[in-house]
Amino acid sequence: MAHIITCYNCRVKISETGEFGLIERLRTLIEADKAVSGPHLILGAGDDAAAWRSDAAVNLATVDCLIQDIHFKIEKISWRELGWKALAVSLSDIAAMGGVPKYALFSLAFPEETDIEDIAELYKGILELAGRFDVKIIGGNISRAPLVFIDSIVYGIASKPDIMLTRSAARPGEEIAVTGYLGAAAGGLRIIENNMSLADCINNPLLKAFNTPLPRIREGQKLAAEGIKCAMDISDGLVADLGHICEASRVSAIINIDNVPVHPAIKKAFGNDALDMAISGGEDYELLFTAGHDIMESIKKQLDCPLTVIGKIVAGDEHRVSLSDNAGKAYTPSAKGWNHFGK
Amino acid sequence: MAHIITCYNCRVKISETGEFGLIERLRTLIEADKAVSGPHLILGAGDDAAAWRSDAAVNLATVDCLIQDIHFKIEKISWRELGWKALAVSLSDIAAMGGVPKYALFSLAFPEETDIEDIAELYKGILELAGRFDVKIIGGNISRAPLVFIDSIVYGIASKPDIMLTRSAARPGEEIAVTGYLGAAAGGLRIIENNMSLADCINNPLLKAFNTPLPRIREGQKLAAEGIKCAMDISDGLVADLGHICEASRVSAIINIDNVPVHPAIKKAFGNDALDMAISGGEDYELLFTAGHDIMESIKKQLDCPLTVIGKIVAGDEHRVSLSDNAGKAYTPSAKGWNHFGK
Repeated sequence: MAHIITCYNCRVKISETGEFGLIERLRTLIEADKAVSGPHLILGAGDDAAAWRSDAAVNLATVDCLIQDIHFKIEKISWRELGWKALAVSLSDIAAMGGVPKYALFSLAFPEETDIEDIAELYKGILELAGRFDVKIIGGNISRAPLVFIDSIVYGIASKPDIMLTRSAARPGEEIAVTGYLGAAAGGLRIIENNMSLADCINNPLLKAFNTPLPRIREGQKLAAEGIKCAMDISDGLVADLGHICEASRVSAIINIDNVPVHPAIKKAFGNDALDMAISGGEDYELLFTAGHDIMESIKKQLDCPLTVIGKIVAGDEHRVSLSDNAGKAYTPSAKGWNHFGK
Repeated sequence: MAHIITCYNCRVKISETGEFGLIERLRTLIEADKAVSGPHLILGAGDDAAAWRSDAAVNLATVDCLIQDIHFKIEKISWRELGWKALAVSLSDIAAMGGVPKYALFSLAFPEETDIEDIAELYKGILELAGRFDVKIIGGNISRAPLVFIDSIVYGIASKPDIMLTRSAARPGEEIAVTGYLGAAAGGLRIIENNMSLADCINNPLLKAFNTPLPRIREGQKLAAEGIKCAMDISDGLVADLGHICEASRVSAIINIDNVPVHPAIKKAFGNDALDMAISGGEDYELLFTAGHDIMESIKKQLDCPLTVIGKIVAGDEHRVSLSDNAGKAYTPSAKGWNHFGK
């Protein structure tokens, strides 16, 4: 293993220090943070595999990736935000299961000219979010590549055995609800695509929604504890993701568009487009779930975030999502699903 | 979820069927194979996270990646071999811990023009190797990217609680040994870099060593059961990886180059270069381990593959690897460590 790299005023690139120098720098960073230690961790970064002790449990595992120019533009997100988002997208999958995230690994690939301190910043973003949910960063892999690739892998456990939120548990008659507001991330994406100046971008809440989503970990656990069975996180967009629930549960769904909680900031910024952005835009990482009316009323009182009932599950062999307004008039959004950059 | 894609005589590209069509095609493939089922699996591919039930255990997790033009040339490996190798590199990490691999997830990224049947072939390679070691493929992620990226994530358990092979357990006085022969994968890489014709490549044992390594899972478990404490797999090359053991264990190492088990096929093909290829070439995925003489004699009788003692661990603050021949003359190999394509 190479010696520890110290970077005070110098800026060191991967090509100068090599993979092992970089790993050592990151290991020092991770181990200085409380995020890596824990009573059950046996081996963290630095051996062939990470190792930890666990009791009998229902285990959860997920992986999600961020790829330069597909999921982000390197000049429109800080390295620290990129680290946060990389972990957030996988934590959100655990939230959507009602689970407790425990450990994370990262598989990273960077161009050789990448500055080591930028990668350290990325890890600081990872560690900041990990610290919020007591997640330990236990290892991973680093490679060269012509563009930035980040895979985040999160292991967790079901909050109680056999209590888990799945996509296949929606039943006709149940109400459909979402946490928070929708469309903010789509607003952030539009700002990025429109090449808004950096000055306009700083502290912009929509850009923040796109770059640093907060996974609904505690909300997911509350849903599971309350007896809710069906949930997923909104990553591809409300209509597309509700479509996934309909397919998996073999049901159909009706959304009342007048009840969709459109994010106030996109109403202000994008006027008439706001509703379609809330319906079709992805990456809000809010939870989408179904439950009977009584459970829905009960969970409303327990969540610290807004909960809005937006429609209902119905029987139907077509497994489709229908949209209509308060007057019962059918509605077709201008774009279905979520398009990443360049598609 | 999109409908299931059927590809009989037609060739369908990702750009035509979309991500969900591809996922459905792969899910059908995986579920038709026994590799996905298992008594403890609760949720496989298709929900927000995979879920499985486990008893109390020491858990192991690792991730490793293959990136086009860094780790492989797409025209020099079949898709089926690529799938095999992607899983093999992570299984080898579990082997190096003496563990039992259980579950695997894949994070894949492909150019849009990639043929769906090629990706199905990749999965067939994954499933073929997974079947050998009873590993279940439980999910993952698929994205677009300008080049092929494959992250394989393997989750396993220690074969017995508190019995685990680490890099930090080498002690002065112990012998150093390797399984199998070294240098075959380096030979395969040289064949690829020399643009040997496809006809020459077919059934070439060196190319096979580079493209479809067999992880030493059972051997790793036997080492752990026999009381060996220190091991790793050779992915970066003998000298580089032994250097990692020296750093982690705070010891030094002496290798007798005349004892290094150079692969017979590279001796034949590359003559005088063969020794350096065996010493410095990576990706053989053999096990490198240390143990006292008596344990080493005992384990020799139990392994079905060759075991060769190549040197010994000594005290030393420099944590360095020294090479010498039978006559005690110091030796410096022509290249230290392992260089991927284009480096």
